[in-house]
Amino acid sequence: MRAARIVNVNEPLQIQELQTPKPKGSQILIKVQSEGVCHSDVHVWEGYYEGIGGQPLKTTDRGVKYPLTPGHEIAGIVDSLGEQVKGFGKNEKVLVYPWIGEGMCPACRIGEENLCDKPRSLGIYNDGGYAEYVMVPDYKYLVKIGDDMDTDISAPLPCAGLTAYGAVKNANLKPDDNVVIVGTGGLGLMAIQLVRAVTAARIIAMDIDDKKLQVAKKEGADTVVNLKNEDYIKVVMELTDKLGVDAVIDFVNSTKSVEDYMQILRRRAKLVLVGLFGGELRFSLVSIPTRAYKIIGSYTGSLQDLIELVSLAKRGVVKPVVSNRFKLDQAGEALQMLKDGKIVGRGVINP
Amino acid sequence: MRAARIVNVNEPLQIQELQTPKPKGSQILIKVQSEGVCHSDVHVWEGYYEGIGGQPLKTTDRGVKYPLTPGHEIAGIVDSLGEQVKGFGKNEKVLVYPWIGEGMCPACRIGEENLCDKPRSLGIYNDGGYAEYVMVPDYKYLVKIGDDMDTDISAPLPCAGLTAYGAVKNANLKPDDNVVIVGTGGLGLMAIQLVRAVTAARIIAMDIDDKKLQVAKKEGADTVVNLKNEDYIKVVMELTDKLGVDAVIDFVNSTKSVEDYMQILRRRAKLVLVGLFGGELRFSLVSIPTRAYKIIGSYTGSLQDLIELVSLAKRGVVKPVVSNRFKLDQAGEALQMLKDGKIVGRGVINP
Amino acid sequence: MRAARIVNVNEPLQIQELQTPKPKGSQILIKVQSEGVCHSDVHVWEGYYEGIGGQPLKTTDRGVKYPLTPGHEIAGIVDSLGEQVKGFGKNEKVLVYPWIGEGMCPACRIGEENLCDKPRSLGIYNDGGYAEYVMVPDYKYLVKIGDDMDTDISAPLPCAGLTAYGAVKNANLKPDDNVVIVGTGGLGLMAIQLVRAVTAARIIAMDIDDKKLQVAKKEGADTVVNLKNEDYIKVVMELTDKLGVDAVIDFVNSTKSVEDYMQILRRRAKLVLVGLFGGELRFSLVSIPTRAYKIIGSYTGSLQDLIELVSLAKRGVVKPVVSNRFKLDQAGEALQMLKDGKIVGRGVINP
Amino acid sequence: MRAARIVNVNEPLQIQELQTPKPKGSQILIKVQSEGVCHSDVHVWEGYYEGIGGQPLKTTDRGVKYPLTPGHEIAGIVDSLGEQVKGFGKNEKVLVYPWIGEGMCPACRIGEENLCDKPRSLGIYNDGGYAEYVMVPDYKYLVKIGDDMDTDISAPLPCAGLTAYGAVKNANLKPDDNVVIVGTGGLGLMAIQLVRAVTAARIIAMDIDDKKLQVAKKEGADTVVNLKNEDYIKVVMELTDKLGVDAVIDFVNSTKSVEDYMQILRRRAKLVLVGLFGGELRFSLVSIPTRAYKIIGSYTGSLQDLIELVSLAKRGVVKPVVSNRFKLDQAGEALQMLKDGKIVGRGVINP
Repeated sequence: MRAARIVNVNEPLQIQELQTPKPKGSQILIKVQSEGVCHSDVHVWEGYYEGIGGQPLKTTDRGVKYPLTPGHEIAGIVDSLGEQVKGFGKNEKVLVYPWIGEGMCPACRIGEENLCDKPRSLGIYNDGGYAEYVMVPDYKYLVKIGDDMDTDISAPLPCAGLTAYGAVKNANLKPDDNVVIVGTGGLGLMAIQLVRAVTAARIIAMDIDDKKLQVAKKEGADTVVNLKNEDYIKVVMELTDKLGVDAVIDFVNSTKSVEDYMQILRRRAKLVLVGLFGGELRFSLVSIPTRAYKIIGSYTGSLQDLIELVSLAKRGVVKPVVSNRFKLDQAGEALQMLKDGKIVGRGVINP
Repeated sequence: MRAARIVNVNEPLQIQELQTPKPKGSQILIKVQSEGVCHSDVHVWEGYYEGIGGQPLKTTDRGVKYPLTPGHEIAGIVDSLGEQVKGFGKNEKVLVYPWIGEGMCPACRIGEENLCDKPRSLGIYNDGGYAEYVMVPDYKYLVKIGDDMDTDISAPLPCAGLTAYGAVKNANLKPDDNVVIVGTGGLGLMAIQLVRAVTAARIIAMDIDDKKLQVAKKEGADTVVNLKNEDYIKVVMELTDKLGVDAVIDFVNSTKSVEDYMQILRRRAKLVLVGLFGGELRFSLVSIPTRAYKIIGSYTGSLQDLIELVSLAKRGVVKPVVSNRFKLDQAGEALQMLKDGKIVGRGVINP
Repeated sequence: MRAARIVNVNEPLQIQELQTPKPKGSQILIKVQSEGVCHSDVHVWEGYYEGIGGQPLKTTDRGVKYPLTPGHEIAGIVDSLGEQVKGFGKNEKVLVYPWIGEGMCPACRIGEENLCDKPRSLGIYNDGGYAEYVMVPDYKYLVKIGDDMDTDISAPLPCAGLTAYGAVKNANLKPDDNVVIVGTGGLGLMAIQLVRAVTAARIIAMDIDDKKLQVAKKEGADTVVNLKNEDYIKVVMELTDKLGVDAVIDFVNSTKSVEDYMQILRRRAKLVLVGLFGGELRFSLVSIPTRAYKIIGSYTGSLQDLIELVSLAKRGVVKPVVSNRFKLDQAGEALQMLKDGKIVGRGVINP
Repeated sequence: MRAARIVNVNEPLQIQELQTPKPKGSQILIKVQSEGVCHSDVHVWEGYYEGIGGQPLKTTDRGVKYPLTPGHEIAGIVDSLGEQVKGFGKNEKVLVYPWIGEGMCPACRIGEENLCDKPRSLGIYNDGGYAEYVMVPDYKYLVKIGDDMDTDISAPLPCAGLTAYGAVKNANLKPDDNVVIVGTGGLGLMAIQLVRAVTAARIIAMDIDDKKLQVAKKEGADTVVNLKNEDYIKVVMELTDKLGVDAVIDFVNSTKSVEDYMQILRRRAKLVLVGLFGGELRFSLVSIPTRAYKIIGSYTGSLQDLIELVSLAKRGVVKPVVSNRFKLDQAGEALQMLKDGKIVGRGVINP
């Protein structure tokens, strides 16, 4: 089978011919039809995240090994099955849950494999979906999507969709709450759709792009704020009787954004940090206890969350937007375009 | 009645003769027998907390008005009752819940008045217990302690005790968890007693004073670490199979302590910040989502928490230690001694 | 002022001329504009609920005293204010939260006064809204509804609406859950609207009236079942892969309905019992632990719930339907009509 | 290998010579050293539980197939390992978590396999521990106990211990709560030890045997009541200011016991039903909503619960008592003795 692989960090991806694996036991082999191109693929390709003071946090220090086939937003069809697999048949359309854990830690034991002590995620710690086929270690990680759902549209659900859903769950909103959503790209938009579907909180969406904000408004944001030319602190304080908001969900999560939140957070507010833009958090230590803030790191979601999300997507609640399609040979190009900010919406590779 | 008051910030307390108030409606007047001397009294006296970069956060900016009678750890007896008071009789021994809210905000509505949007706490926003009498605006804020409990011993429960209890609740520990408790003064010790009583987590206590650490060990810490001369990171990592701890409760909460935690926190760990020492929190933004940390500001506790705590104290589970006793005239001296670190345990004023 | 009162149980209501009370302290006097006519008013009028084996549970055994002005669904305007009232002005439109507790029990302390050990609810334990004026013991029990909301439409929110909302909260539904709602009258319809608004569960509505079921379908039920001529067990099992539903919310709650649920409950299912129709629950004892069922009694809701509900109603999420309007003189007639099943939707008294 | 098997329900167990299975993949074969004899083994042997009106609920209707090797309280050593097993070595001492699910249902996905839609529990749906060896389908179901823990003492933890722990968790007790524990046999005693260890609630233990009640008192019950000759309603009401208790945990769960609880339950109380004695629950339907009761079926516990429980047992918090030891040949005799009430404490088979 052919795969687009990172052989060395920050070098062009190589198309390699690998042996197609054969599933045993509870393993299942998926023929990839659609593979989403995600920002964290760029980090895995570059080999680092940005830490405090601009210092790089290397992916190899987190246990990533190269050469690696990236890709963790995988939709496809069942190709072949290990002998213990039950309930799946050849050619069934499925999504792959990629946030696989080693199974023995406290997080895995309660089904939160995305928070495993020793993760084995596909496309990060094991070969992923930038390939014609991907091996899934157990059929329990597959979610059937049925013939009526498109694989291109569905592919972003296990990462972009799940990250938005996990963040909304972590914000734990009530109907009378006010929530700020920072960033109205793919994740932010899905978060707006999800807040609408499973809470009844009022939404203030913030970004620096008027076009995106218009879409945000259409998808359900009650108020939109362009951070470039509007005084967001004033807007928030007027909307909230000078009390501040009950929650902020930050899909950008860069240094500056966090410092400023202190001025718009209501006492008891939750600050849900999602984005991997990087940099540092700087906060007054006295304010955290006296104002009873909660700062919550939110990382993707569980398999159960994905099942719920697919159920929502089937009913049209969440609608990922696919804007660019690539062939497997163009995988490197896709990563470069994403890095350069040239993909609006979501890019998908069709191997 | 006589009261020891802060007339101007950072000036000596003055003993003033005030008119003894008369309770109406659901109000109740308490004759103060024991009034705990708390570190936050020192902040109220000095007029500020330490913010980012050493900049002062002024108490007047938080709505404190002077002259003020400080004091929020009040134990005494019922003196006189408004006409709507039920269920209390003259001379009954009571504790006062001082973290009173304005009653209409979302926190107040679920009984978390300590987290009110517009707090009216006794000794901070209203006159407190450095006086012969204190007016309590509603008898529901009183907790009966019975004749068998000493007012000196009980006085620290509504602040020191409640703060420890609230922090332990926020850590939400399970029997197989490892928790680090930073600071083994009065609050830290009570936290150790409470972790023992209502969870079965393993406790690692840290401080810079061997004597305090010996007491911590006796009260139930499984491991103690002197931060002065032991490599706490090494100790923690050895105890936890190199995974780190599930929670840290920090009763000091100064700049340095927070930076270092990143090295001992297990994925998914909770960092419960309690102390008001001040300074700034600096944290890698990428680590918070990828490691799924939760940073939780913990501020005192609710009235229901105090009821539970008194129930525990009556059974000997929590034992505040009173080390110094003062007369009302010595209130200023008591604050100075506390500021200078000359009170080990808890100081109590007997007006 | 004039009031329609129950002087003796099961006798015609009497219109009495009472002295209009004057508010003191934090009390507030409301001029009633709209007073909902509720099934539990009928029970209070008749003096009993139906217990096991048809035996009556007397209201006087639960502490109700007669003569009594019934009525707990009160919308009106502020008439006059006690001297401690803040934030309310004459003629402001408000809803009254009637489920007032005595303030000192564990439920009251966390804001669940509806579950108080010694309730003082308006219209049940104290005089309610079948009158020109009603005295509210504290202004914190008032919720402003603004000029844009109609009092007739709003009046059912504090009981019918809150009961539906409380039940939906107790069912704790997830997006992929299936829930059965039994009874599609006023409460059932609001429950359907609320399930739609704050969860994304699939709804199976059941009743014995095709017209009601059509409305249920229009308001968001995914499936409707007429219990008279459809095999609901078959319908449910087909919809749920023979597993059963995750929750049942029963707004009727009569003897027969409960027995049958065992056949449609999924393992781990919640059975939320709301209705006061009466009779007895009979269940196999072995099945409860082995099937891990939860049977949850749901009684109205908290003040915080009402605030959330009003926020939802203001945005059109919940729409109580008022079908009949009465004058105060017709209060007895209204009760009789409700008892005889002649009110479809909600009756409202305009004193 | 030899196994003591139920060939036909209600007939004597037969010792059969079976082929010793060989582990593949992630399977692991355990050499049984200690196998607890549990009341539910008797039900599986008899082939039914008692339902409503004395009607039998047949085990075959629940999917049990015979011949079957019973036994789900298994402690032993690792004998041989499938090729994918990691982290376990030959002869390591382990406990087996027997409440295995099929892995794909909502309960399994959050690690509550004990509540699976289609359970595969060892000793009930698959061959269990009344044998020289038992095959465990995945090494994640094993919990290491270390050399310092005795297998006889540990064997009851995965069922008796876990059932007690699960029930205590379901009761969700707070420090000021009062809880009644009905039945002070093995499970009741462990529940008392666990309430002591992880809550600080006050315990009222009830039974009909003075000797057992003395032990209950020694293990931490605050009050004991002999149901034969004491008026338990009077005792409870006096201890609780006539309010009733916050929770009842019923390890007997027979028809009569449930009816009477209504008289000792505080408003909002939880009734946790655990025992499989059988019969029917009969309850006034009106009381459940108006009193806001919760009736909770509690069935064993999760793998995470077992990890926590073993951690507690290692520290001496829970101490199962083994009273009788049997050889494999005596398995049938052991079941008969248990059925006849001749085993006080726990019987253990040493194959």
